[in-house]
Amino acid sequence: MIFYKDPSVKYKPFENKVKLSQRDWPSKTITKAPRWLATDLRDGNQSLPDPMTFEEKKIMLKKLIDIGYKEIEVAFPSASEVDFTFTQYAVQNVPRDVAIQVLAPCREELITKTITALKGCHKAIVHIYLATSACFRHVIFNDMTKAESIAKAVKCTTLVKNLTKKFGNDNWALEFSPETFSDTDPEFVVQICNAVQEAWGTDTSSQPLIFNLPATVEMSTPNIYADQVEYFHKTIKNRENICISLHPHNDRGCAVAACELAQMAGADRVEGCLFGNGERTGNVDLVTLALNLYTQGIMPNLDFSDINSIIDVVERCNKIPIHARHPYGGQLVVCAFSGSHQDAIKKGFALYEKEKEKTDSSVVPWKMPYLPLDPQDIGRTYEAIIRVNSQSGKGGSSWVILKNLELDLPRKLQVHFSTKVQKETELKARELKSNELIELFMNTYFVEQKKCNYKLVDYNIKRNNTQNKTDLEIKLEIHGCVKSLKGSGNGPISSFINAINEEFGTNLDVHDYSEHSLGKNSKSRAVSYISMVNHKKESNDASVPSNIEWGVGIHESVTAASFWSVISCLNSLERDHAI
Amino acid sequence: MIFYKDPSVKYKPFENKVKLSQRDWPSKTITKAPRWLATDLRDGNQSLPDPMTFEEKKIMLKKLIDIGYKEIEVAFPSASEVDFTFTQYAVQNVPRDVAIQVLAPCREELITKTITALKGCHKAIVHIYLATSACFRHVIFNDMTKAESIAKAVKCTTLVKNLTKKFGNDNWALEFSPETFSDTDPEFVVQICNAVQEAWGTDTSSQPLIFNLPATVEMSTPNIYADQVEYFHKTIKNRENICISLHPHNDRGCAVAACELAQMAGADRVEGCLFGNGERTGNVDLVTLALNLYTQGIMPNLDFSDINSIIDVVERCNKIPIHARHPYGGQLVVCAFSGSHQDAIKKGFALYEKEKEKTDSSVVPWKMPYLPLDPQDIGRTYEAIIRVNSQSGKGGSSWVILKNLELDLPRKLQVHFSTKVQKETELKARELKSNELIELFMNTYFVEQKKCNYKLVDYNIKRNNTQNKTDLEIKLEIHGCVKSLKGSGNGPISSFINAINEEFGTNLDVHDYSEHSLGKNSKSRAVSYISMVNHKKESNDASVPSNIEWGVGIHESVTAASFWSVISCLNSLERDHAI
Repeated sequence: MIFYKDPSVKYKPFENKVKLSQRDWPSKTITKAPRWLATDLRDGNQSLPDPMTFEEKKIMLKKLIDIGYKEIEVAFPSASEVDFTFTQYAVQNVPRDVAIQVLAPCREELITKTITALKGCHKAIVHIYLATSACFRHVIFNDMTKAESIAKAVKCTTLVKNLTKKFGNDNWALEFSPETFSDTDPEFVVQICNAVQEAWGTDTSSQPLIFNLPATVEMSTPNIYADQVEYFHKTIKNRENICISLHPHNDRGCAVAACELAQMAGADRVEGCLFGNGERTGNVDLVTLALNLYTQGIMPNLDFSDINSIIDVVERCNKIPIHARHPYGGQLVVCAFSGSHQDAIKKGFALYEKEKEKTDSSVVPWKMPYLPLDPQDIGRTYEAIIRVNSQSGKGGSSWVILKNLELDLPRKLQVHFSTKVQKETELKARELKSNELIELFMNTYFVEQKKCNYKLVDYNIKRNNTQNKTDLEIKLEIHGCVKSLKGSGNGPISSFINAINEEFGTNLDVHDYSEHSLGKNSKSRAVSYISMVNHKKESNDASVPSNIEWGVGIHESVTAASFWSVISCLNSLERDHAI
Repeated sequence: MIFYKDPSVKYKPFENKVKLSQRDWPSKTITKAPRWLATDLRDGNQSLPDPMTFEEKKIMLKKLIDIGYKEIEVAFPSASEVDFTFTQYAVQNVPRDVAIQVLAPCREELITKTITALKGCHKAIVHIYLATSACFRHVIFNDMTKAESIAKAVKCTTLVKNLTKKFGNDNWALEFSPETFSDTDPEFVVQICNAVQEAWGTDTSSQPLIFNLPATVEMSTPNIYADQVEYFHKTIKNRENICISLHPHNDRGCAVAACELAQMAGADRVEGCLFGNGERTGNVDLVTLALNLYTQGIMPNLDFSDINSIIDVVERCNKIPIHARHPYGGQLVVCAFSGSHQDAIKKGFALYEKEKEKTDSSVVPWKMPYLPLDPQDIGRTYEAIIRVNSQSGKGGSSWVILKNLELDLPRKLQVHFSTKVQKETELKARELKSNELIELFMNTYFVEQKKCNYKLVDYNIKRNNTQNKTDLEIKLEIHGCVKSLKGSGNGPISSFINAINEEFGTNLDVHDYSEHSLGKNSKSRAVSYISMVNHKKESNDASVPSNIEWGVGIHESVTAASFWSVISCLNSLERDHAI
């Protein structure tokens, strides 16, 4: 049944592996945020079917600054007039603590143009790149030798040094990217970077030097990238004076992992884009990386507390939507549809509330099944967490009722209601929205009293303690006509049911009863839940007895609430043609 | 500027790390495909806002079988009638070599119902799960002890054993999932799995046993998951008789990485969904995992040679689109917009064609800048690879012209045309589609002869060899009127230009000329490219001299093609009000 050819004739296992005498990174843990560089305006923009307009670039730049990025690659100034002009706009408009980075290939006239675009810049990073991998040197540079590559890199480094000298030292940095780092002979990478370092001057404290190690194309499992970075980290000269930067792409779906493992391997800095925009499968996702740190208790030094506003800007400028399952930002990632997940989350929140009440601290450690991050930390509401469809059990629908109507349904009523919900979702073959669920609940249990055919008018309770007996006279409005019923029993509810059985020829019995208050002020109301066995109806399924009638009543008076819960049952019986 | 609170008060670094005395996985490489289990119909379906209809489930099941999955989790039969019924449908309809897997919690009545649903199944896997992590036991099971968990697992294992005994042994397997494996004390996982193994019977060759190790929620960097799996792999009893299965989720965006590293750590089997559908951020993506193997020359034993048809089914059934940047499947992942990428790919393809011609083998090793996978291997065309917008250079637009019009533009004409393209893309502020680019080319160089104001009618060439002179008489149609021109020169083209200079008072000079044939049969035509210096026009920019006029002519006759190329220039001059 497999039609395609054996791939081994066309593809080879990845080759440029490093032999590390000792491998340290797998035992390390990330304990602090890296230096971040956002390249949404350069690598991100370059990859868009419809690149950003000037106006959109301004919006994106502002958002990146607001989030807290201190290094932003704004353009490829030698590639187009728009990029050149926008670089000058950025020079004029970013705060003084934000470094502007621009990219140029190792071509002298283009480097000159690039540095011209930075005129007036307070803090700049000139980023130059050169093909170093065998494949790129062969294909793009027509078999350029390693020596020729080194010579070109040194020449261009010297040019940058000479051109930027006049701007003063402190606030101008050089970044050099050997392309594709991840596919280049690891020893050659160190060799060319050492040569660049020598040309730039090793006193990099005053003229900072960044070596950026791009996985221009992701070509292997992420541990290999970490090995390569650890090798570079351990063999590059003057390690303490240079900054090691990562620039992973996501071709194998492992960019975030590669970036995390490579930080463990010694890297200091990360280049990427919001929500992983970028060429092909994208650059590494800066949002996921930052919030991955956050959920481990580490300050990312970036502000994602209003993720929705960031999503808005990214979707507007990139014209590519954030996927529903995108970590942290996706619409569905804090949702649970399945019954077991919903139950767990519901229980988790109940425990979390208890913990909160117990402690004096304003913050309670987060430990929630299925939710690694408190959605409120990134400005998302709890409302969206539990959503209900045919896969959901009692937990989901009762959570929605609890959150919206404050009704904390008894467990058996949850089961009863969930069977109604499941029928409805299967019928509709889709999710039920909160308002639909609420409407279903209100209609099923006749919670909206004005819509009922049977209504409470008033009542008179006489208690005879010596006989341990309650006499009830109760007036109901039935299809608009008021009718008076009388009954006796142990208490008001049993008296009412006795009256009903006599009046309507039913054979109902109280099975379960509970109540709780609604709201916390003096105007609070009570809600009553009653279940009654209907002895005139047979049940086939032991797990959900169909001869159980459920009623829900809400009223300022607890007694009236209990009567309304019985009346709710009466309305159900009428709908089912049982009275 | 950072408004959110210090996360360290609310979140803690991941705790359940394993101490491995020796760590082997970082030195390993994946050399073969794992056993695959597709859970699109269970875990995937459970996570959809609008779950699959019965009809959609049938379509998905068929597609999974067609791709080549031999183990498919079809439902959670005890959760709903639809799931129960669909299990029975699957039992009746899958080929005999496909195992049907179903999920049930460790609750006896639900296990019984689950196994009932499998009645008549030829090859089945009963998958049971139990909360084992401290968090889950605390929250969901109200502080269930470890001993109670083990007792429950053993009881349910024995139940499955007894219920399935009557079906015969060979084709019934048990799968046990400790939940959340990745957050459970590693020693306890081994302890409970050893107990399950003892209850099931250690002769698992006849009654296979799968231990599935879910990262129900991804909670740490992927190396930790690999450590946990390596520990399990090295300490579980009877390792050779049991199967270790992985079930990663993608909360930290590292599911693919975790799954690959954990395979290196000893796992045999992978559970996931097509394109990473599944709860929250999704299950691990089976497409990416398989094609990651493929690009390393390893047979995934799955057929993704027509990825578009798979995308169609997934999008139809899940009602969630595949993201444009999704590895392998996304619409943009084989596209290059940036000029440098386009150049590299163009050069790569040219070299690849040469290699193909040189070799006798039908397959040439793939080594293409920016394209780790040949798009044709998954049924995607080359057409979509290079797309043109304001970020593109000459490479992109000339690639589109080459692929669509078979015109292999000379390098300087590529530059000339790309300036026109850039103006147009900046004006439109969006990508230019292929047909728009072609139209722009045709209009810029007056390639469509019937639309020209200047047209060739006929010509007469007289060669005087003794004088080394060519005399040309040529008839042009100019705005509908035929005009005869005469001129002499070294050859037909110079004669024609001399005639033009005399007639129109221009001062044109041939700068560059080339031609090639179009098509390979007898009806092939010739294309001529001419560039002329217009001495009456000044140039400001050295890189793109504006006093160069370019012309393109196509005709069955090479001579006529060359005349048409000159006429193409005449048309341009008229448009620019230069004649």
